[in-house]
Amino acid sequence: MKLADFTTLALGRLDPLFKQYLIGSSHSSEKLNEAIAYSVLNGGKRIRPLLVYLTGHAFNASLDSLDPAACAVELIHVYSLIHDDLPAMDNSDLRRGKPTCHKVFSDAFAILAGDALQTLAFEIIATHPAPLNANQRLKVIHVLSHASGIDGMAAGQAIDLLGVTTLDQLTKMYQLKTGALLNASVKLGIISANSESEQALTALQCFAESIGLAFQIQDDLLDIEGPKEITGKPQGIDNANAKITYPLLIGVEQSRQKVKDLFSEALDALEFLGKNGQLLREFADYLLHRKK
Amino acid sequence: MKLADFTTLALGRLDPLFKQYLIGSSHSSEKLNEAIAYSVLNGGKRIRPLLVYLTGHAFNASLDSLDPAACAVELIHVYSLIHDDLPAMDNSDLRRGKPTCHKVFSDAFAILAGDALQTLAFEIIATHPAPLNANQRLKVIHVLSHASGIDGMAAGQAIDLLGVTTLDQLTKMYQLKTGALLNASVKLGIISANSESEQALTALQCFAESIGLAFQIQDDLLDIEGPKEITGKPQGIDNANAKITYPLLIGVEQSRQKVKDLFSEALDALEFLGKNGQLLREFADYLLHRKK
Repeated sequence: MKLADFTTLALGRLDPLFKQYLIGSSHSSEKLNEAIAYSVLNGGKRIRPLLVYLTGHAFNASLDSLDPAACAVELIHVYSLIHDDLPAMDNSDLRRGKPTCHKVFSDAFAILAGDALQTLAFEIIATHPAPLNANQRLKVIHVLSHASGIDGMAAGQAIDLLGVTTLDQLTKMYQLKTGALLNASVKLGIISANSESEQALTALQCFAESIGLAFQIQDDLLDIEGPKEITGKPQGIDNANAKITYPLLIGVEQSRQKVKDLFSEALDALEFLGKNGQLLREFADYLLHRKK
Repeated sequence: MKLADFTTLALGRLDPLFKQYLIGSSHSSEKLNEAIAYSVLNGGKRIRPLLVYLTGHAFNASLDSLDPAACAVELIHVYSLIHDDLPAMDNSDLRRGKPTCHKVFSDAFAILAGDALQTLAFEIIATHPAPLNANQRLKVIHVLSHASGIDGMAAGQAIDLLGVTTLDQLTKMYQLKTGALLNASVKLGIISANSESEQALTALQCFAESIGLAFQIQDDLLDIEGPKEITGKPQGIDNANAKITYPLLIGVEQSRQKVKDLFSEALDALEFLGKNGQLLREFADYLLHRKK
């Protein structure tokens, strides 16, 4: 199967699942549900759930066994975007070319929508019908919560808010703010496939760490090079806010070289998977040669 | 054992557990961890974890089997308070007589602290060493996530933000915003005790619903009657903001009567527990005769 076909097949599962969970019951608040649906169903690259599906598939998991983790990691990601966009945080008016959640529904409803999405992520892992046993579900919850909390994504956002000045700090911030959840995504795929060998975990984490950092540096580069129409946010916004980036600290050429090196490390890590790693290789290639 | 002794014994377990989890690893952000610790370790009545311990104890559960659920429900409650206090929400400067989290650490860090606390709640249930099997842990996660999400606490906050005008709306708002988590607390105690008979669940839910609503009406009454020194927030704040309350809609006397009726319903629901329900009865009595 080609990557494009697998992506269509796998990610096509998400919206129907989301719609099923976002409606709520008769108890729920219509406006809150609208704010949530607006943010979840607005497209996006869905890199994290795709990584769950691709990794699980490489270890022979069925797609339905990967649904809970794939849904949950995307909901965690979306909640973090809604909160990051708030005026008190990054103060962004646009997300994926559309007004951000708080611009449409108010800051209060954006805070609430993010909160409720995080909750929903864990509820889905605990309850969504799928061929997963209780121990697998608990491991998925453990990995996802650890990656998104005070030792992961939330810490990365805190470091970002306080400001970074050195390459070490910037790298740490990227590893926590984005890397932790990408890293978790491959683990979630392996756990859902019930294939947790030490070799698999170590290799796939190395893969995820490499593409995670490369993805961020690529983002920095696109921010300098890409027009607004492609990236969906005003060009050069990071520079305008005097935000420290890889190209700013080590230059454009060295940043490009770093992306290439990380890409090659990522491919090396997949070697042991042989033919089963093909789609993950294509995915890395797509991710690091994207124009937006 | 007397209620005061049990309360000291049970709630005394929480701070050491919280401290263990709030420190984070070397990866984490010191300021974020401080904002979290400031909010979690500032006292508070800890009614929800106490209800977990009391219910579990009534069904012969050991205290250590109740720790994960007790910790988690309090962390969910604290996260909701931090977010509710934000300028974009209720805009409160004081909580328990001290400056609110965002006044001390900034809105951004208050948002992040709340987010990370919610995450931590689920991580603790999934991982904290306790005599609970995987299925019990998953049920705890299910009950807690359902009670705090779009069909529970978050919906209640949304309804509150949009404003209520009738007694039905006010009651629904109370049932979701506060009631859902109190209701969950008794379920969590029963699940952790591995005693999920239909009779137990139905009776304890009736108990929790009655004391939950009574607790809120009592809050409304205290808000009119109590001085600032006792309630820890400026007196009459709900009236100043033209907030609809029980006394405003049905009068002080009828509100007091309603509290009495609900109290008596709560006691009736515990009848089947016999001597085992004694501490829960005393707890209801304490809760509804409190002066703050």
